Amino acid sequence: MTLPRRSHPRPLDLKHGRVDLTHGGGGRAMAQLVDELFVAAFDNEVLSQGNDQGAFDVTAGRMVMSTDGYVISPLFFPGGDIGSLAVHGTINDVAMAGARPIGLSAGFIIEEGFALADLERIVISMAAASKAAGVPVMTGDTKVVEKGKGDGIFITTAGVGMVPPGIHISGDLARPGDVILVSGSMGDHGVAVMSQRESLGFDTEILSDSAALHHLVAAMIAAAPGIRVLRDPTRGGLAATLNEIAAQSGVGMEIGEQAIPIKPQVLGACELLGLDPLYVANEGKLICICGPADADAVLAAMRAHPLGVDAAIIGRCDADPHHFVRMKTAMGGTRVVDWLAGEQLPRIC
Amino acid sequence: MTLPRRSHPRPLDLKHGRVDLTHGGGGRAMAQLVDELFVAAFDNEVLSQGNDQGAFDVTAGRMVMSTDGYVISPLFFPGGDIGSLAVHGTINDVAMAGARPIGLSAGFIIEEGFALADLERIVISMAAASKAAGVPVMTGDTKVVEKGKGDGIFITTAGVGMVPPGIHISGDLARPGDVILVSGSMGDHGVAVMSQRESLGFDTEILSDSAALHHLVAAMIAAAPGIRVLRDPTRGGLAATLNEIAAQSGVGMEIGEQAIPIKPQVLGACELLGLDPLYVANEGKLICICGPADADAVLAAMRAHPLGVDAAIIGRCDADPHHFVRMKTAMGGTRVVDWLAGEQLPRIC
Repeated sequence: MTLPRRSHPRPLDLKHGRVDLTHGGGGRAMAQLVDELFVAAFDNEVLSQGNDQGAFDVTAGRMVMSTDGYVISPLFFPGGDIGSLAVHGTINDVAMAGARPIGLSAGFIIEEGFALADLERIVISMAAASKAAGVPVMTGDTKVVEKGKGDGIFITTAGVGMVPPGIHISGDLARPGDVILVSGSMGDHGVAVMSQRESLGFDTEILSDSAALHHLVAAMIAAAPGIRVLRDPTRGGLAATLNEIAAQSGVGMEIGEQAIPIKPQVLGACELLGLDPLYVANEGKLICICGPADADAVLAAMRAHPLGVDAAIIGRCDADPHHFVRMKTAMGGTRVVDWLAGEQLPRIC
Repeated sequence: MTLPRRSHPRPLDLKHGRVDLTHGGGGRAMAQLVDELFVAAFDNEVLSQGNDQGAFDVTAGRMVMSTDGYVISPLFFPGGDIGSLAVHGTINDVAMAGARPIGLSAGFIIEEGFALADLERIVISMAAASKAAGVPVMTGDTKVVEKGKGDGIFITTAGVGMVPPGIHISGDLARPGDVILVSGSMGDHGVAVMSQRESLGFDTEILSDSAALHHLVAAMIAAAPGIRVLRDPTRGGLAATLNEIAAQSGVGMEIGEQAIPIKPQVLGACELLGLDPLYVANEGKLICICGPADADAVLAAMRAHPLGVDAAIIGRCDADPHHFVRMKTAMGGTRVVDWLAGEQLPRIC
């Protein structure tokens, strides 16, 4: 993204205007969009340098980089929109290494004809999420594709962060006997999006849990630097994410159905929609696996944070050679919680 | 991108298979695509850690981050494809700060029904470009959108790199009297893509110049650490990029038409296609601005590098208060080389 400083004859018509191919063409129209919308909203020193890169100083240490594309439909949903989601989601992927996020990049792929008013709403939401999290959008890019070759807007963010010295968190570090915790209720995001998509009217509106978890992670690490695994259960939900970790670490897991926090209205909506809440995406929750000696400290640190008040211990890792995730059901039986085989919820993030 | 280690009942059908929504769903099909295609092709230690982030060590210093989305059409063109372009383009944006690129992230947005064979061809090309450049793809993400909601494949890469101590290169540092150089012939990429798109058959095939410029930049910096501005003239070509720098630095520029290297077959194709080569995108060329005392050393360093053999001094910066870019034409007159006003070449990168 190039940000020369210059004036434009007429300001962008953010009320009635639409994105056209010139906004991605590298010329004056793109420069105006960048100046009047992106740079104005994101409003930070790095981006305002006006170069094709954002520059920042780092200390020596371990760094992580992560990226996610956001293709969520609808673009606006209860509790968030594609803009705030694209900030939160990538901050969370960085934070799940125990890292302190430094900054983000943002690449926009916009369909010709997209309303500038919607673009403005999304960019302002992104900027607000970025400022609230203290993680600036340092560099970006805008492309425009012809009408019918996209779907409104797709956003791909990448993020970088520094891992504090002595912290080593990775999906392959779970060991038999380790304790499995979640930071709060499961399924809120997916159900919020699906109920919007299906135009279901519930008595109580279910909001996406979309949130940046890096401060929660920092508090957990301060309480227990030996945390072994952190991962946010997004696409595929708790079930897919636990299976990933089990396979990666070479352990089995046993979780208790009754221990998993799920809001009654989410459960009810899942019944209506024919969904299993264990497979429904979350965007502001994390799974933590730690040694048994750390579990109480981690749980207390989570519950003391606004984004972890409903945190719970939901199970333990064991030495199952099949690396199955098993669940003790409320009825007293045990079932295998398998990988999600097919596509349960397309374009949920 | 999550990379649990596990086996899949049947390998992906890379010959006849197609991408479907399950490949973006967060479950087993996505894990298989990631394991058997992405991780296998990119084949590097960071990615193989199997986490949602790539981790790497950095020394203290100045870092840059950059991103670009690639929506080029057609996906395969003479001299490259969207995969190699997505590697080269983002390496170049990092290198234009004088930085040594460390690694890339890659976010894929794929349209349902896209042939797995094409995806494999693109990923293998990306991996080859990444390995040749010595810049690994450290982390990634895959999303799938419904048929008709995308256009085959879009790729957004981000990159990070370290700026060597003492180097400060930025678009706002050009000063009156500074010398303007280009690293080679202008317009090759855009003309190669457009001739493919328009199914023009030329006697001599024109190849995209798509290439990673970080080694060229390192050689230039070694010769002249005081280089002031580097920028790659992509969308909008030489004309738009010079105007950006002129506005950002608050200088005017005068360039000589006859000094600008353009291949005869590119000139001919531009006439056929009704294009002005000064506005046509390049993907393996750079503009350099340096103080007059450094110009000979920079030019010699460029010409000594395989990607700079046709390098040339094309003009100088001056104190024009309008920040115009003016060109002495071959006919002896002078014309203003304006910003690109509209969309000349949609989806050229």
